[in-house]
Amino acid sequence: MSTSQKGNLYLIPTTLGDSPPLEVLPLMAKKAVEHIDHYIAEHEKNARRFIKSIVPKKSQPNLHIQLINKFTEPTDIPNMLQPCHEGFDVGVLSDAGCPGIADPGASVVAQAHIQGVKVVPLVGPSSILLGMMASGFNGQNFAFNGYLPIDKKERKHAIKRLEKRSGDEDQSQAFIETPYRNNQMLESLVQTLHPDTRICVACDITLPTEDIKTLTASQWKQKKTDLNKRPALFIIQK
Amino acid sequence: MSTSQKGNLYLIPTTLGDSPPLEVLPLMAKKAVEHIDHYIAEHEKNARRFIKSIVPKKSQPNLHIQLINKFTEPTDIPNMLQPCHEGFDVGVLSDAGCPGIADPGASVVAQAHIQGVKVVPLVGPSSILLGMMASGFNGQNFAFNGYLPIDKKERKHAIKRLEKRSGDEDQSQAFIETPYRNNQMLESLVQTLHPDTRICVACDITLPTEDIKTLTASQWKQKKTDLNKRPALFIIQK
Repeated sequence: MSTSQKGNLYLIPTTLGDSPPLEVLPLMAKKAVEHIDHYIAEHEKNARRFIKSIVPKKSQPNLHIQLINKFTEPTDIPNMLQPCHEGFDVGVLSDAGCPGIADPGASVVAQAHIQGVKVVPLVGPSSILLGMMASGFNGQNFAFNGYLPIDKKERKHAIKRLEKRSGDEDQSQAFIETPYRNNQMLESLVQTLHPDTRICVACDITLPTEDIKTLTASQWKQKKTDLNKRPALFIIQK
Repeated sequence: MSTSQKGNLYLIPTTLGDSPPLEVLPLMAKKAVEHIDHYIAEHEKNARRFIKSIVPKKSQPNLHIQLINKFTEPTDIPNMLQPCHEGFDVGVLSDAGCPGIADPGASVVAQAHIQGVKVVPLVGPSSILLGMMASGFNGQNFAFNGYLPIDKKERKHAIKRLEKRSGDEDQSQAFIETPYRNNQMLESLVQTLHPDTRICVACDITLPTEDIKTLTASQWKQKKTDLNKRPALFIIQK
């Protein structure tokens, strides 16, 4: 690409665990990594490991990796797109899954629109989307709510609010939890929700241990399930 | 697979237009089509065309295709999973994109959970997810609302309600429109929303003509854009 033309910002999804990358990523992701040397990522080590896994022959010393994470100052974001203005394509990598969805990449994407840099999202695994597909719930109307409050009383209140909205608006409500607190989350759900409200638990998505089940709150209550430290998405529908 | 074991229900995404399938679909989708002969699809012709495009050598006469669409009676759905109970894997195909998301496939997935059939969602292009990634909006909290009302007054009311929620809850609000009404939708948005509210229009996603832009309502007002008959996702964030 000539330096007279702006580079694009490619949003390159990564695997959700140790899957072979091309089992869950299309050729466009491989082609993007083949030609891109400038990256914005959460952790340099994870970015290099992913790039090596999808294009083993890629020269690692030639990679330029800028970091975006909770320590990044908002004022640092605009400069991260400098390579685009010099004609280089830039790739955004998430630690797991799709950049811009529940990860810090969204702020650099917002900057790209302000600076007139073309944004190109590539297909890849998203636990939110795969969980919604597999839930059997209303895919015509759903919300992803990120994390719920940790405080027990506030959490109970949030669960009740989401249950009500799922019924009133026929809008399925998805959320996540830190994996080591997943069992407590399922416990809170079965204790708080109406026994007939359906809960989808989508666990280890795209991994060999993948397990996705939709049951009523009362059915989950009778079931022994260990979700501890397994990445999971929860979705409810009254 | 032996007939003593249940088959799985694979949710197999398709392309969003005439892209070469492996540019946007991972190997797992190809492998699923290679080994599956039983399908549930919206239109038989589209299903056969997709299967041929991703596995050209697949025998077409051996395919068993059941249809699910607006003419399907809810009472017909449970029997569609009969092949799973006979030990055959079954694939669900959407006309475009991901089964179960804004298409009739969700009802057969719900049945699978009731009948204890394992549901396996595969990675593929979703305009909702790709649009959210590329919008630069808050990917930690978003809702997909399907279609808005067609009636002008009701639509205006719905737009105002979604704008308010996007601000009050910091939840980006996505929706779609029938492609031949896209220009009217953008017109309604710029007339109804606060001038500073941001609108992302994600158009022709994954196609060579892909165009994704996030601008304020007042910036869109000054811009000449023709979205007529181009598939588009709209997302707003106050």
